[in-house]
Amino acid sequence: MDINNNKELINKELIGKEFKCLDHGFVRLVDYMGDDAAIVQAARVSYGKGTKSVSEDTTLIRYLMRNQHTSPFEMVELKFHIRLPIFVARQWIRHRTANVNEYSGRYSEMSDEFYLPEISQIRSQSLVNKQARSEMEIGTETSQNIISSMENSQKESYNEYQDYLENGLAREVARINLPVSNYTEWYWKIDLHNLFRFLKLRMDHHAQYEIQVYANTIADILKDILPISYQAFSDYIQNSVTFSHSELSLLKTKFANLEFDEVELKNSGLSKSEIVEFKNKIELLK
Amino acid sequence: MDINNNKELINKELIGKEFKCLDHGFVRLVDYMGDDAAIVQAARVSYGKGTKSVSEDTTLIRYLMRNQHTSPFEMVELKFHIRLPIFVARQWIRHRTANVNEYSGRYSEMSDEFYLPEISQIRSQSLVNKQARSEMEIGTETSQNIISSMENSQKESYNEYQDYLENGLAREVARINLPVSNYTEWYWKIDLHNLFRFLKLRMDHHAQYEIQVYANTIADILKDILPISYQAFSDYIQNSVTFSHSELSLLKTKFANLEFDEVELKNSGLSKSEIVEFKNKIELLK
Amino acid sequence: MDINNNKELINKELIGKEFKCLDHGFVRLVDYMGDDAAIVQAARVSYGKGTKSVSEDTTLIRYLMRNQHTSPFEMVELKFHIRLPIFVARQWIRHRTANVNEYSGRYSEMSDEFYLPEISQIRSQSLVNKQARSEMEIGTETSQNIISSMENSQKESYNEYQDYLENGLAREVARINLPVSNYTEWYWKIDLHNLFRFLKLRMDHHAQYEIQVYANTIADILKDILPISYQAFSDYIQNSVTFSHSELSLLKTKFANLEFDEVELKNSGLSKSEIVEFKNKIELLK
Amino acid sequence: MDINNNKELINKELIGKEFKCLDHGFVRLVDYMGDDAAIVQAARVSYGKGTKSVSEDTTLIRYLMRNQHTSPFEMVELKFHIRLPIFVARQWIRHRTANVNEYSGRYSEMSDEFYLPEISQIRSQSLVNKQARSEMEIGTETSQNIISSMENSQKESYNEYQDYLENGLAREVARINLPVSNYTEWYWKIDLHNLFRFLKLRMDHHAQYEIQVYANTIADILKDILPISYQAFSDYIQNSVTFSHSELSLLKTKFANLEFDEVELKNSGLSKSEIVEFKNKIELLK
Repeated sequence: MDINNNKELINKELIGKEFKCLDHGFVRLVDYMGDDAAIVQAARVSYGKGTKSVSEDTTLIRYLMRNQHTSPFEMVELKFHIRLPIFVARQWIRHRTANVNEYSGRYSEMSDEFYLPEISQIRSQSLVNKQARSEMEIGTETSQNIISSMENSQKESYNEYQDYLENGLAREVARINLPVSNYTEWYWKIDLHNLFRFLKLRMDHHAQYEIQVYANTIADILKDILPISYQAFSDYIQNSVTFSHSELSLLKTKFANLEFDEVELKNSGLSKSEIVEFKNKIELLK
Repeated sequence: MDINNNKELINKELIGKEFKCLDHGFVRLVDYMGDDAAIVQAARVSYGKGTKSVSEDTTLIRYLMRNQHTSPFEMVELKFHIRLPIFVARQWIRHRTANVNEYSGRYSEMSDEFYLPEISQIRSQSLVNKQARSEMEIGTETSQNIISSMENSQKESYNEYQDYLENGLAREVARINLPVSNYTEWYWKIDLHNLFRFLKLRMDHHAQYEIQVYANTIADILKDILPISYQAFSDYIQNSVTFSHSELSLLKTKFANLEFDEVELKNSGLSKSEIVEFKNKIELLK
Repeated sequence: MDINNNKELINKELIGKEFKCLDHGFVRLVDYMGDDAAIVQAARVSYGKGTKSVSEDTTLIRYLMRNQHTSPFEMVELKFHIRLPIFVARQWIRHRTANVNEYSGRYSEMSDEFYLPEISQIRSQSLVNKQARSEMEIGTETSQNIISSMENSQKESYNEYQDYLENGLAREVARINLPVSNYTEWYWKIDLHNLFRFLKLRMDHHAQYEIQVYANTIADILKDILPISYQAFSDYIQNSVTFSHSELSLLKTKFANLEFDEVELKNSGLSKSEIVEFKNKIELLK
Repeated sequence: MDINNNKELINKELIGKEFKCLDHGFVRLVDYMGDDAAIVQAARVSYGKGTKSVSEDTTLIRYLMRNQHTSPFEMVELKFHIRLPIFVARQWIRHRTANVNEYSGRYSEMSDEFYLPEISQIRSQSLVNKQARSEMEIGTETSQNIISSMENSQKESYNEYQDYLENGLAREVARINLPVSNYTEWYWKIDLHNLFRFLKLRMDHHAQYEIQVYANTIADILKDILPISYQAFSDYIQNSVTFSHSELSLLKTKFANLEFDEVELKNSGLSKSEIVEFKNKIELLK
């Protein structure tokens, strides 16, 4: 992998392009500062001569990610233009370490677009997960009825909103009965470390489906402009598994004889320092 | 003013008491850490022996506020339980330096309560302020019609929500058509410096009326538990006026002979160091 | 474990007590807001009726910690008075989500106390860890010489500082040659979530020994005032082990037949929901 | 003023260039994202159609600054490489809303460069300002002696540091007696709103001279790359004067007849909306 991403080429393809999300939403990368090389550059300030031996950039990025040396990842900043339903915006805004300029329903009329779920998303409450829908779709006819009812309700709300405005009612009051399915939009700026944290939580299958759609779209953009960092995030954060103290105790009962020979380890794709770390972890399992 | 607030007495009266806001909302002080004395205590750590001469606590607090030495005010922390319409919550949450636990419409059913404005708030769009309602009420009959329409719409939305739930639809999907007038609630924890910033912006007459109601309620609580700090905030921040460089130039054309004699100054209520500062500012006006 | 810590009893013993750290430093809990019960209380606001079934507080706190539902832990706030060498303060301050009032060398004279390591800390550079000392003490005589040299140098610096002050030099200039072993002090206020993050990084054996001493002292205080939360932190964060995607692949080669019977699991001390989670993780190992 | 700064031209001249500060320090702009136009762009997302009438970009930026609509200024991000004495770094780091990667004395040897004040900075303690030096230089001979003493002390500290390292002492221990005049360096990334806040506090004559030098250098860079925003900051924040509630009462006693005629106002350079605002403020003075 070449760390010198050709930013100019990427820009032509990615900057400003709308990636559609849900029925009327989008994610659009407005601008960004820094790439994989910028992370390495910042890390080398900290380590000074101490990193002479870490000769390879990819290795350094992966080391930083694995060991939660998060500050070099903060040196990359990304700015997005996002169109999203209000209920998604309400989950999104909980990520506080970010900058936001949102469309204001006090200054301007709210849009006439509303999120209407696809029939495949009209699902029953999960029984195992108190916060989520299950995998089970409600019967087609009921689902169709629900969707029709939602659509009618959205149109009616918007008509009433227009009526209020025509009667001269101030925008900030007229909008109070618009539903949280109404689309809003914002500029959203965040550093890469906090964006990875956003992705970890919002690409997770426990997150609400609708915000997952946005998180996955952002992830696709990152794969292009920060391929090495994204891969490290995927390997060490997103697809890692953590065992608690008690779980480790339980595993130990099975692993008295756990051994890996050097050939296995060399062929595993782990780096040299990862092999050392792995051996240390394995000791914990014995 | 006695800086040693009797926290125990205050607690009995204030902690846990619901102060009603709007039709179904409230502000409730859950807990707090620190009072006026705690601010002084923290400031004296910074100044060490250097503050020996600042003998009076009130004087020190007012000095800190006036000179934007904000960190000692951060040493006081307050926790509130607040019930508020979603559209107010959306403005509120923009104050990022705070901790929040909000009621979740994914885990639990949303409440059946909605904000319905009083007839006095059914006002026309302001012509001078693009973001606000004017002082002008819309005619009584139209206003009544708007309120009735809003109430019907809220009831209908809630009935549809109940229908969706009865059909087994997951809560996180069923709630997407509930309007932003629906009440939510949260625990909100913030330090005093950031709370003053919140109050400055949200007690301002440019803020939406509905959030002003909450901000004013919180201000009343602060007057009780942090009387000296609140007074300083009121004098130096909230009721101060800032003149820009150009405005000062304009004022200068009138004030060539501006003079204050010492008696005037002594009787003005300004402290000794404030008088020095005032004289310096007056020079800028000449 | 009883969640209703008797805050009054704790206060009598802990609040204000100096816990000595290094040769001239200390940690002193000045005040705090919230205990284990306050975390549960905040979490229940979010989950509403959805948590009816989570009947036990300890279970809820452990669930929150395990699943990184961090916001309820932010509802507890702690304020410390800390005396520490400047070089420790420089590492400490990197934890940005906290409030600080530090002693100012511009306002007041710096103290005449300096950190002088014990002979057991005069160790050679680690060969495996570029940032740390090794376990190997330097020979006694050399170590003694180093300590003597350090002590002389500290005394000399302070004498020069005093000379500069006596010559009328401004404090803010006179102090520029004082070494980073000089003691400073501050008030430090932080929420529990961010404090756990501080502890995870600063109790770690990769952290500099001197800051570990402070972190361990704070940990001891937390064990007393937030026993359930601290235990959960210890089990799920501090003493957990995370395996990366590649490491899991490697483990899979050994665990085709990994099985746990129900009796083993029941006797493991894992809660019901932890057993479900554990089984899911185990599937990843096959 | 043309809002479309030619970023490419600016880059050639500014990006990467070292601007010397003090004897061995520098400020170097590494990268930045966004210019005056980016602020306007973000603001227009918030205001939507509501800003149709604000036709001019400069007017909009000045309006935002004047009314503390700070979020659009957060949409610009700047990254600097800075070399500075540790005692300056300790003041600097108190600005928490920023990202930092600092050179580590645990990983690498500290530099052999130390800040030695010029003779003009060897001044006596201010009698009016407890935290600062006065305007008065100490007599030449004494000053020379102080500087010589400081230089010797710095050399000696560094020699001892080298001795410790040669004796095998770990870097993290060996450096504890290096003085706070020792130079460190870091990458520092911050958004424009928070950078203006930094400049307001650190260009102020109450700030320590040495950090003022850095702040002024950064200000010069901003004047080039964000000329409109910087001018607005200068007019409305840096060179504005705020009168407290009591001060306004005092001014009122002189200004019963304060009047400005329309010609004066038109010729003042105030914009139309500023004239409206000014008239409102003047009413407060009557």
